[in-house]
Amino acid sequence: MSVDALIDRIVKLQNPTVVGLDPNPAAMPPQLLEQARGDNPFERAANAVTAFNFALIDTLCDIVPAVKPQAACYEQLRYEGMRAYFDTIRYAKEHGMYVIADAKRGDIGSTCDYYANAFLGKLALYGESLPVFDADALTVNPYLGSDGIHPFLKRCDEFDKMMFLLVKTSNPSSGEFQDRILEGAPLYEQVGRAADALGEGRIGSFGYSSVGAVVGATYPAQLASLRKALPHTFFLVPGYGAQGGTAQDVAAAFDARGLGAIVNASRSIICAWSKKNRPAEDFAAAARDEALFMREDLLSAIGHLIGEGN
Amino acid sequence: MSVDALIDRIVKLQNPTVVGLDPNPAAMPPQLLEQARGDNPFERAANAVTAFNFALIDTLCDIVPAVKPQAACYEQLRYEGMRAYFDTIRYAKEHGMYVIADAKRGDIGSTCDYYANAFLGKLALYGESLPVFDADALTVNPYLGSDGIHPFLKRCDEFDKMMFLLVKTSNPSSGEFQDRILEGAPLYEQVGRAADALGEGRIGSFGYSSVGAVVGATYPAQLASLRKALPHTFFLVPGYGAQGGTAQDVAAAFDARGLGAIVNASRSIICAWSKKNRPAEDFAAAARDEALFMREDLLSAIGHLIGEGN
Repeated sequence: MSVDALIDRIVKLQNPTVVGLDPNPAAMPPQLLEQARGDNPFERAANAVTAFNFALIDTLCDIVPAVKPQAACYEQLRYEGMRAYFDTIRYAKEHGMYVIADAKRGDIGSTCDYYANAFLGKLALYGESLPVFDADALTVNPYLGSDGIHPFLKRCDEFDKMMFLLVKTSNPSSGEFQDRILEGAPLYEQVGRAADALGEGRIGSFGYSSVGAVVGATYPAQLASLRKALPHTFFLVPGYGAQGGTAQDVAAAFDARGLGAIVNASRSIICAWSKKNRPAEDFAAAARDEALFMREDLLSAIGHLIGEGN
Repeated sequence: MSVDALIDRIVKLQNPTVVGLDPNPAAMPPQLLEQARGDNPFERAANAVTAFNFALIDTLCDIVPAVKPQAACYEQLRYEGMRAYFDTIRYAKEHGMYVIADAKRGDIGSTCDYYANAFLGKLALYGESLPVFDADALTVNPYLGSDGIHPFLKRCDEFDKMMFLLVKTSNPSSGEFQDRILEGAPLYEQVGRAADALGEGRIGSFGYSSVGAVVGATYPAQLASLRKALPHTFFLVPGYGAQGGTAQDVAAAFDARGLGAIVNASRSIICAWSKKNRPAEDFAAAARDEALFMREDLLSAIGHLIGEGN
């Protein structure tokens, strides 16, 4: 199962980190933008993004199990950017990395069927059944209820993929709706319980299901209570690093084996060169150094090897 | 203001309809798919979609004020499909149509900044400030709270655009979270009140703001109560036609002037040729006939000319 493949990779590399490949032209190494060629500014910048991502994947794939390209960063580079998205997913998979498409899609059932084709499934065209962006997993918004979730579940079952339902997001305003009491419990907890229920019958060999949840590092108390409440739900934890979450904050996301979660960092790793005042030419080495630091940071918070009891 | 431009167009054409340009290769006129050329199946199908949309825009632009291309339909055709999305938006605007990008985006603030660039704003690249997909309006998911809404509002103010917040969606499971009582009122009503509040200070000459709401035709009681509760919020009403909503169901979306809402139909119009058993070659004429029928249907439910009191 897809969730087992992710956990296997985490255990093998002893690293519960996913790197957010969220390139922003304004914060990229300037030489990549200058060196890139293209027929228009979008194509040129998209080619720079592809070069940036390929270099990051090259330098990270032996120490980091997964990447999470954020669709918004590519959509703002028009269809040329979506080509970079496709190329990035393909290249990461070729290098053994697990790919979580972070697109937070959600719509009515018939529309989610199209989104599910796009990110996790295949499309029938001219007598062929063709994978489209073909990520390993996708983030999904719960606001429309189960109609909007089932098409993704169907692709999880059919093509051995995974999904992560937004439960408690990492941003400052996430509580405006998510924390409020919906018939006896916070909305985020109700969504979390729905995710856990959808995972039943989809549980892999580590006890986690193919229906994960997004739970922010920036809300450690909720993270800890959700870990207890949702024993079969694997967590994607954004908010470490640039958003303010620490290794101590995310420690509660893990079970006694050090399993149960993968922690995302985006800017702190892909922009490490500028954050650490290193030359732009060293962006890949700076990303690797930061990823190694993050692994040690997370492992020390877990307190033992991942996959072994404490 | 953008909302005024939309209402002006509705009044001029006496038609509160938006046509969902939601092409699905499995339900398109087969000759378009056969005639299209491309270097691969995605490019070929995307070119067929572009030809389909251009013909629909040609035949509808003098009777229908707006189109709503659903991003999912284009994303399932890979980056080649997103090129068709771009070309469709451009062509519709060139033909005087108001374009609502239906993408239901929502994320943390920094990420929504990228989505807002993509759909409503501009991106700085190589010393230029470039529009990207450049729709007139975008649908937005509220689950992440105000952080995830403000970047879109900022583009509405800066580039004279509009947004529609998902409030009560048209799908069967929309009530699973949206109808449940969140601290004294249904979640959808709380989100609706947030949309109305965000619209204050952004109200145009008809009394409606640039912050609209998506409210499904399939829930007429909620539609009626929201119309009363949110006097400054313009409604985008999906669910008419193939999803089961009738003109009587949507009548409550309009104010006494017949303003305040635009009703979407997708499959009932763009697939009218097959639903009415007409030859596939007549797809554009069938769409026009169905759009004319829908206009009469909505006008008879309103009961008087749009823009005049009853």
